[in-house]
Amino acid sequence: MKIALSQFNAHVGHFGYNVSRMISSLESARKQGADLVVFSEMSVCGYPPKDLLETDEFIQKCLEGLVEVATHCQDIAAIVGSPSLNKEGRGKRLYNSAFFLYGGKVRQVYNKALLPTYDVFEEYRYFEPATNFRVVAFKGKKIALTVCEDIWNLDNFALYPSTPMDILIKQEPDLMINIGASPFAWSRVEERMEVFTENARKYQLPLFYVNQLGGQTDLIFDGGSCVINSKGKLVGSLGYFKEDLRIFDLQDVEKQQGLPVSPLNGEEEKNSLLYDALVMGVRDYFRKSGIKKAILGLSGGLDSALTLVIASEALGRENLWAVLLPGPFSSDHSVKDAVQLADNLGVKYDELSINEVVSSFEDSLKPFFKDLPPDIAEENIQARARAAMLMGLSNKFGHMLLNTSNKSEAAVGYGTLYGDMCGGLSVIGDLYKTEVFSLARYINREQEIIPENTLEKPPSAELKADQKDADALPEYHILDPILFQYIEKKMSPQQIVEDGNEAALVEKIIRLVDGSEFKRHQSPPVLRVSQKGFGAGRKLPLVAKFPSSWK
Amino acid sequence: MKIALSQFNAHVGHFGYNVSRMISSLESARKQGADLVVFSEMSVCGYPPKDLLETDEFIQKCLEGLVEVATHCQDIAAIVGSPSLNKEGRGKRLYNSAFFLYGGKVRQVYNKALLPTYDVFEEYRYFEPATNFRVVAFKGKKIALTVCEDIWNLDNFALYPSTPMDILIKQEPDLMINIGASPFAWSRVEERMEVFTENARKYQLPLFYVNQLGGQTDLIFDGGSCVINSKGKLVGSLGYFKEDLRIFDLQDVEKQQGLPVSPLNGEEEKNSLLYDALVMGVRDYFRKSGIKKAILGLSGGLDSALTLVIASEALGRENLWAVLLPGPFSSDHSVKDAVQLADNLGVKYDELSINEVVSSFEDSLKPFFKDLPPDIAEENIQARARAAMLMGLSNKFGHMLLNTSNKSEAAVGYGTLYGDMCGGLSVIGDLYKTEVFSLARYINREQEIIPENTLEKPPSAELKADQKDADALPEYHILDPILFQYIEKKMSPQQIVEDGNEAALVEKIIRLVDGSEFKRHQSPPVLRVSQKGFGAGRKLPLVAKFPSSWK
Repeated sequence: MKIALSQFNAHVGHFGYNVSRMISSLESARKQGADLVVFSEMSVCGYPPKDLLETDEFIQKCLEGLVEVATHCQDIAAIVGSPSLNKEGRGKRLYNSAFFLYGGKVRQVYNKALLPTYDVFEEYRYFEPATNFRVVAFKGKKIALTVCEDIWNLDNFALYPSTPMDILIKQEPDLMINIGASPFAWSRVEERMEVFTENARKYQLPLFYVNQLGGQTDLIFDGGSCVINSKGKLVGSLGYFKEDLRIFDLQDVEKQQGLPVSPLNGEEEKNSLLYDALVMGVRDYFRKSGIKKAILGLSGGLDSALTLVIASEALGRENLWAVLLPGPFSSDHSVKDAVQLADNLGVKYDELSINEVVSSFEDSLKPFFKDLPPDIAEENIQARARAAMLMGLSNKFGHMLLNTSNKSEAAVGYGTLYGDMCGGLSVIGDLYKTEVFSLARYINREQEIIPENTLEKPPSAELKADQKDADALPEYHILDPILFQYIEKKMSPQQIVEDGNEAALVEKIIRLVDGSEFKRHQSPPVLRVSQKGFGAGRKLPLVAKFPSSWK
Repeated sequence: MKIALSQFNAHVGHFGYNVSRMISSLESARKQGADLVVFSEMSVCGYPPKDLLETDEFIQKCLEGLVEVATHCQDIAAIVGSPSLNKEGRGKRLYNSAFFLYGGKVRQVYNKALLPTYDVFEEYRYFEPATNFRVVAFKGKKIALTVCEDIWNLDNFALYPSTPMDILIKQEPDLMINIGASPFAWSRVEERMEVFTENARKYQLPLFYVNQLGGQTDLIFDGGSCVINSKGKLVGSLGYFKEDLRIFDLQDVEKQQGLPVSPLNGEEEKNSLLYDALVMGVRDYFRKSGIKKAILGLSGGLDSALTLVIASEALGRENLWAVLLPGPFSSDHSVKDAVQLADNLGVKYDELSINEVVSSFEDSLKPFFKDLPPDIAEENIQARARAAMLMGLSNKFGHMLLNTSNKSEAAVGYGTLYGDMCGGLSVIGDLYKTEVFSLARYINREQEIIPENTLEKPPSAELKADQKDADALPEYHILDPILFQYIEKKMSPQQIVEDGNEAALVEKIIRLVDGSEFKRHQSPPVLRVSQKGFGAGRKLPLVAKFPSSWK
């Protein structure tokens, strides 16, 4: 049996596009002699559709799309992901299903059992978990068909009381097919491959996996569809961050020795994945929004530099507009470094001073501020003047403003709400500052794209005289590991101190993180590339008093 | 048996406070001869704790708090809500539990079975659903103890495959106790009482219900704890939006005829509930944030007027600062009406023109805008100038900025991101404009607090000459019902048209709603008072293409 894996860039709710892409994959696979084409989870509607699932019309469109794909499955079979209606009269209204299409119609429906409801996943919001399972018989083979999370309930991660494969294996299947919509996080790429190998070994069956591809708002689906033989060795992969269709012969798969699943090859491979992920995230956010052009404030600092490089790759340099907005405390090198970068990339730039606007704010507020010493209020006015300038240009000329905040500053609230926290999309908001440095060095690995001075000079917001980030915050190589322990690892302050960090410093940092939850609540969507990004995957009350001893 | 119901204003994560409030309730109930005191769901930690539940430290504090409460339960029993650890080794890490405390220790634990995971609820994110249930035996009576949603799975709302009370009833209980954390929505108050009566009648048992009280970020818990006898009649209630402790004798409850559960008594009762809810929501958001003072821009229009009235009641007029920010297109009556309102309320106000700042923005942007005709860009600059002024004052003097947007304008995106959409809290963002009018009339029912001219004049953003909301939007009495059908009722455009609305108008409105999802993504938390507010309870992709035929 020849099985085609098709990973394509689905667009949530764009049924016409998704269905036509599946039909063209079926045509192409048929020509190459495939018996079956496998598409990803929710391939008919894109994933995650979120509350669109709650409207009758959306479900109707899914089912119509399935019927249309089925008409192209006369002599070739397809596995297509779609929501389906729960007709039991009790429980949630929908299932998350894999449809087996053949002979022009739906032959069998498998419903997902394990519904991830943690981090960015909210499947139990919509779906009823299935409790009985039947293999799909096709061309003399029995297929154990599952959906994404269904194969993730291994002994070391037993988040669910039971495991569908433990039931399906009793029906003596010949192979496993899993359709997924597993979003990218750099640390999950390895983990995912390990889960596949464990499954293949545990059940002694080859595993065919198809993942969704493409950016959907904050989530980036990396593809990485692959085939693992029953020895747990990698036989083939469709690669990351690109559309692909590949055909595998079931017999060959089992004959092939395959390759061991290898861990990430250090910092360079991580950066390569991060770069491709963020480029795809930006590109798809714009394309799927129907917007071509982006604007951003280029400060001469590293964050806006990295954002510009990524956006320029994603959207084309001709679609970028960099605006330099020097203010009363901007240094000479700010403008110089920014111009150098724009020139290196061939991106259009303009300079627009905020000084006049800042003065008029200060004049207008003078009757209230009187002779009070300048403080955060005056600093924020500069950041908000910049934001209003950029939004003015954005509104006038139809460019989307890119946010340039990094994860370290978003974490500790070192940014101005309605100022530098503005934008339609946060591009690098899931990269700690140390990761920003590392990715910038990776980008410069062959030639200097980001000016060396931008990389070398001490980070500064330049909102008061001689300001440095390090005046207010610990150095990033100290700050970031503590943030990682608190945010990603969910360690308590006490545990972080016991791990060898200074108590007063840990307390200071965690107070900042907790105290700036209200700012992050109003931030743009952040492209998620880590196991715990800010946004939908991290939900905290804004008025909690915890750790209560501190406030 | 004498049962005390205690509804108190818990604060998420503030263990010291919550525990001490429970201990003082126990003392008070003991003096009045109670055998048992019932507290709400998650009373030890407050609800909803959200991802704080994911840290070990938080769970530890919950369990320590329970032990402390238990030491005060020597000769009196208590039912306390808390998360508890799932020790099965499979499934989610926690249960949502009701602890029965007596004789100084935990006697029995009931785990919640039905975990609401829809709208603002995300319980399956954290908790494993329980599957077996045992009544609590106490002083010769058997108590069927359940947690909130557990009694909501009635035949007309069968969201779950099974119902705990159907199992518990076989153990022949004498009464039902349900502890809840059921947030306010004006349309839910009646529904909740109907669910209670249905349960009492179905199982022919009296029901004792305790609900959480108080604002927790966007959610407002109204209390409304009550006792229903086995005939489904209301025997007593602790009232809405206030702390209370009341003692009921089980025998008396069954002897009393009680009152039928009555529906809301029209618009006035709805407005009375809305007003109390919003006042509590504002008050608790500030108190639980540790912030005393609020600032807001007072435009002379109705939205900021209503916001000021509510905030003034919630925080005290001495803690409010109203700032009038007239701009190039502000009418004379704007300032006059705003001053009149501030005077009526006795709230401090100041006037601060944005003209100079707006001019400096326009001058600075002139090299780019050239002679292009003024459009939304110039309008937004005015709104953003106001926001930056208000935030400057907020930053300098430590007042929290109140957002004054209503639900109609938030729905159609008729507001400026980083402009009038700014603020730490959206006070009336879950009221459609027609509801804003109705609530304002209610406030003026005995004397003119909001100036009549504010109520009478046509709504306008005053961002260009002679602008009226009605130039860009349908009249609110036409707009709001369509929004309600789309947002609350989740009707498709086609269904709304079939309901008798003009197709072109429906399409225009729904395009605006869908197209402004990105703005709402960055809005402050909105006090939720309806069955479907913007925010955590309504999750939509920002780059979806649906309805796909339209874009």
